[in-house]
Amino acid sequence: MKLTAKAAGTFAIAPTPFLDDGRIDDKSIDGLTDFYAQVGCNGVTVLGIMGEAPKLEGAESEAVATRFIKRAGDKMQIIVGVSAPGFAAMRSLALKSMDAGAAGVMIAPPPHLRTDDQITNYFKQAVDAIGDDVPWVLQDYPLTLTVVMTPAVIRKIIMDSKSCVMLKHEDWPGLEKITALCNFQKDGSLRETSILTGNGGVFLDFEMERGADGAMTGYAFPELLIDVVNLSKKGERDKAHDLFDAHLPLIRYEQQLGIGLAVRKYVLQKRGVIASSAQRKPGVAITAQAKAEVDYLLSRVARYDKRANIAPQSSAAG
Amino acid sequence: MKLTAKAAGTFAIAPTPFLDDGRIDDKSIDGLTDFYAQVGCNGVTVLGIMGEAPKLEGAESEAVATRFIKRAGDKMQIIVGVSAPGFAAMRSLALKSMDAGAAGVMIAPPPHLRTDDQITNYFKQAVDAIGDDVPWVLQDYPLTLTVVMTPAVIRKIIMDSKSCVMLKHEDWPGLEKITALCNFQKDGSLRETSILTGNGGVFLDFEMERGADGAMTGYAFPELLIDVVNLSKKGERDKAHDLFDAHLPLIRYEQQLGIGLAVRKYVLQKRGVIASSAQRKPGVAITAQAKAEVDYLLSRVARYDKRANIAPQSSAAG
Amino acid sequence: MKLTAKAAGTFAIAPTPFLDDGRIDDKSIDGLTDFYAQVGCNGVTVLGIMGEAPKLEGAESEAVATRFIKRAGDKMQIIVGVSAPGFAAMRSLALKSMDAGAAGVMIAPPPHLRTDDQITNYFKQAVDAIGDDVPWVLQDYPLTLTVVMTPAVIRKIIMDSKSCVMLKHEDWPGLEKITALCNFQKDGSLRETSILTGNGGVFLDFEMERGADGAMTGYAFPELLIDVVNLSKKGERDKAHDLFDAHLPLIRYEQQLGIGLAVRKYVLQKRGVIASSAQRKPGVAITAQAKAEVDYLLSRVARYDKRANIAPQSSAAG
Amino acid sequence: MKLTAKAAGTFAIAPTPFLDDGRIDDKSIDGLTDFYAQVGCNGVTVLGIMGEAPKLEGAESEAVATRFIKRAGDKMQIIVGVSAPGFAAMRSLALKSMDAGAAGVMIAPPPHLRTDDQITNYFKQAVDAIGDDVPWVLQDYPLTLTVVMTPAVIRKIIMDSKSCVMLKHEDWPGLEKITALCNFQKDGSLRETSILTGNGGVFLDFEMERGADGAMTGYAFPELLIDVVNLSKKGERDKAHDLFDAHLPLIRYEQQLGIGLAVRKYVLQKRGVIASSAQRKPGVAITAQAKAEVDYLLSRVARYDKRANIAPQSSAAG
Repeated sequence: MKLTAKAAGTFAIAPTPFLDDGRIDDKSIDGLTDFYAQVGCNGVTVLGIMGEAPKLEGAESEAVATRFIKRAGDKMQIIVGVSAPGFAAMRSLALKSMDAGAAGVMIAPPPHLRTDDQITNYFKQAVDAIGDDVPWVLQDYPLTLTVVMTPAVIRKIIMDSKSCVMLKHEDWPGLEKITALCNFQKDGSLRETSILTGNGGVFLDFEMERGADGAMTGYAFPELLIDVVNLSKKGERDKAHDLFDAHLPLIRYEQQLGIGLAVRKYVLQKRGVIASSAQRKPGVAITAQAKAEVDYLLSRVARYDKRANIAPQSSAAG
Repeated sequence: MKLTAKAAGTFAIAPTPFLDDGRIDDKSIDGLTDFYAQVGCNGVTVLGIMGEAPKLEGAESEAVATRFIKRAGDKMQIIVGVSAPGFAAMRSLALKSMDAGAAGVMIAPPPHLRTDDQITNYFKQAVDAIGDDVPWVLQDYPLTLTVVMTPAVIRKIIMDSKSCVMLKHEDWPGLEKITALCNFQKDGSLRETSILTGNGGVFLDFEMERGADGAMTGYAFPELLIDVVNLSKKGERDKAHDLFDAHLPLIRYEQQLGIGLAVRKYVLQKRGVIASSAQRKPGVAITAQAKAEVDYLLSRVARYDKRANIAPQSSAAG
Repeated sequence: MKLTAKAAGTFAIAPTPFLDDGRIDDKSIDGLTDFYAQVGCNGVTVLGIMGEAPKLEGAESEAVATRFIKRAGDKMQIIVGVSAPGFAAMRSLALKSMDAGAAGVMIAPPPHLRTDDQITNYFKQAVDAIGDDVPWVLQDYPLTLTVVMTPAVIRKIIMDSKSCVMLKHEDWPGLEKITALCNFQKDGSLRETSILTGNGGVFLDFEMERGADGAMTGYAFPELLIDVVNLSKKGERDKAHDLFDAHLPLIRYEQQLGIGLAVRKYVLQKRGVIASSAQRKPGVAITAQAKAEVDYLLSRVARYDKRANIAPQSSAAG
Repeated sequence: MKLTAKAAGTFAIAPTPFLDDGRIDDKSIDGLTDFYAQVGCNGVTVLGIMGEAPKLEGAESEAVATRFIKRAGDKMQIIVGVSAPGFAAMRSLALKSMDAGAAGVMIAPPPHLRTDDQITNYFKQAVDAIGDDVPWVLQDYPLTLTVVMTPAVIRKIIMDSKSCVMLKHEDWPGLEKITALCNFQKDGSLRETSILTGNGGVFLDFEMERGADGAMTGYAFPELLIDVVNLSKKGERDKAHDLFDAHLPLIRYEQQLGIGLAVRKYVLQKRGVIASSAQRKPGVAITAQAKAEVDYLLSRVARYDKRANIAPQSSAAG
């Protein structure tokens, strides 16, 4: 099923699992996919920034995307990150992913874009490259990508391309941007678009209240994202915040640029979801001290949320 | 009393209070200073990035620094941010501040520095400019300043200058950097230096455990910083984290780049510490929705920490 | 006489002359001003990027600007660079310069600006700060300032502010931008504005043909700029290029970022216009090898242009 | 024949020829290769920044590299640019290129590198990836790549890797860097390394005099580069400068970032070397006015250098 502007809920950002020798770990892709489906994710985004996508060769990217897609089957929608330095590689991965059954693709702006026109023109060319029948997600992540898009520029990109159905919002600070975009929708200048928020979930509590439709991020407890999204939609504000706040110390720890991926792979490995926490080079390793800090945070989260109560023996594998 | 490498505890980063018309609010400087002294801060850093320092003229900077210094008297040490585009202005403010009784000055690297040599040479020239008898604080804040200093570069800067007595650490991620610097101190390659941490306090819990000597940041509840620093030093780990975690949702909210200052001035105004939350242009205003979010966070913090229980009437002034 | 949108010809960008000990060299300011007037410059821009403006304290900036202005008298228009990290300092220098008799001021965007709105808003606030009765020059210099302005953004800034009378164009590549702006003027969407070009003059030949009104740059032979501007206006294309090409090897050498200022001060000193080639720290010194290269280039230029024939004895002072 | 530290002379940076519909133009690859061999280039570097490398898919890159290599046969050495966002793609292209008969590969640092350690570590990992038996060229191009390497860092990279045999020097300003590196070689701290200079050739005259071993750049008249390199090596300084200066107005025009490639493809097409001046998107088109300017510059160069006298009929194809 293709992605539409009505998409909502929680899309996990998946890491790409590697074996200790750097080869892709197909079994862990399967395990990861099953895990996301089991906890109730609405979808999974693969080959994003957190997915170490630039470290893969073209053929590997296709293989990884296809494996996630096939495993997810009709249980979850898979979005494939197709950002690339050139449109040829972007087009190729987008078409192969869609052929394999992806729900859509995600595109981030390349770091050299500066002016409003440069940004909107880039996305026009990107849509020309992938074809206007491929549903796509616009990624807005200035902290890492250094490209700053105003709400009006985001609106223009979306209104220029019927196939843009979702915004992955991860500007920071970003709450006022959600409000601005929702106001555009209210005044009719922006058509319906799904807004899922990233940035490690560190502002998910208020992002939902500002009008976001859900979460798209890689926190190693997607269950928490799902719960906060659902509680928030039901209007159970205090409950949403209570649960969110219990996780926030760990969310914050995982959100650290660079190191965050190592932490997430460590936690997912502890949870038994992936076999190895290995990254391809260049990667940031997690130190023993950081592992102990994460373990401590997990034990504290577990006081409120039993799901963080990970059996100590699995820790040995870390 | 001049700043030494033994400095520890909590140094508040002070905003510069303005009247609604943009003039400097001397009375609120006094009130702010008294407040910091009363809650138990060891010192105050003025005219930092959060202090809107670049928006002041030279004479204004001197007046603001002097007023803080005189009011603090012998109750607290005042550190004056003297970062400037040129060494003439840096020298002038440093000397005038020290004459007025400042404990030391703080210097951040200008954004164009790239190589290790460029960075270490810059600080050599800065020390030449202010004189090697002025105790100074090295500010390491890559997220905002775009200058990346390795632990070895920081060590070299400190070992090159006897008058460098403190590091304001606000790299992010930054925990491993604290550990690296402490290891340098253990192996004797780095002399004793005070390490106070910034970044809004968002990692203060673990920074203390990694070896930091205290906090230097602008969270509008310096009481929390003081308590976490003290509990951590006493080895009361769980208590430190319990208190820290209760504040983390608000700490996170205040730490947002740009907007953070507006939030802090709003909270300090609510607390009755400053008269107006006005900033000089260009500044980011806090929206009604953001105020409501902060009020909600305050009410949640107040469940654990009575000091966040701010009387609703003062809110009207916001 | 105040600067107007009809300004044209050659405005020299002046270095700030220092004595070897770093103090400002008032006598050389006088000599430099006389020199520019004598060779036929229409104006001089002081305290620009090349003028080491950020290395001066507030009072020094005022003194330097005033000295240039007084010396120029009614012989040339003086434009004062008032770019500053904050509007208070910008306003102060602008008002004092205008009071002293400046023709106008020049404002460059601060490096953090990214989106079109951020840029246009910044200049609105700048005009609010200096007052809308002060004629000002918009500096467009992305290579150094990292702020990229499209022709449409430049047009909006100019159309938003009646007191913006001139563009200092130094984008690179920049020829198409001149053409775009001239086309805006032809289609009536942009009012008359003086366009003077910078970038060391390295494209002056074609910039004039594209529609520029003159040159504003710091080449140490302003006579060449004046001649190329005049020949170009007369339509003597080949003559303009012949003369320009003879100087291009030196123009290119002087245009090097950072080192360029050292080269220019060296040449101006050789020409007897300023007493010392000293820069305030941090500065780039010219090596003996570079001096020899400049001397060789001068000797080659002198084959076509006698004015480059500088007596060897003055070289000894370098 | 593999590339060694004794490499010298002129290596052309080749554009990648495309047909008007964006497909790779194999025939023009052959023509281009023949042309470079015929005029006397010592080698050709393909898939560099100017070669639109990021716009190709993996398989295309291999095909382009292989075609150049096969066509060059034993007439010229081919260096293949293998810079990539990840080491998997870098390794793959490097190995396939070497298998096909490449003389070596070229690697540029990715833009996010900042500290000296980050830079040297990156190249260690790169050499791990491609294997230490593949001769490689270190590209130093801060203006485009934003990575600043001091002479000491370049030395460390070279001394860390025996297979690093050449520096593509294109820092700007860059003359003192060549001198610093040559001084390292003289004092024995840096082993023999070939230094070829880029930056469009705009400083080739002095770069040779400072100690460079030759040129590696994409000027559309490689004959000029060859002549200047040879005259310079023979010590015929004035002749070298005379010829160089005649071309400098065009060299400067071609060196413009972004537009430069369009100019070069236009000139190469006029010379009959490639069939189309098309670029893949995103690309910068050359305007009619720019074409006329280039034609004018060619006619002026042709007064001194008959090789620039391109028959007008070929112009019609532009």
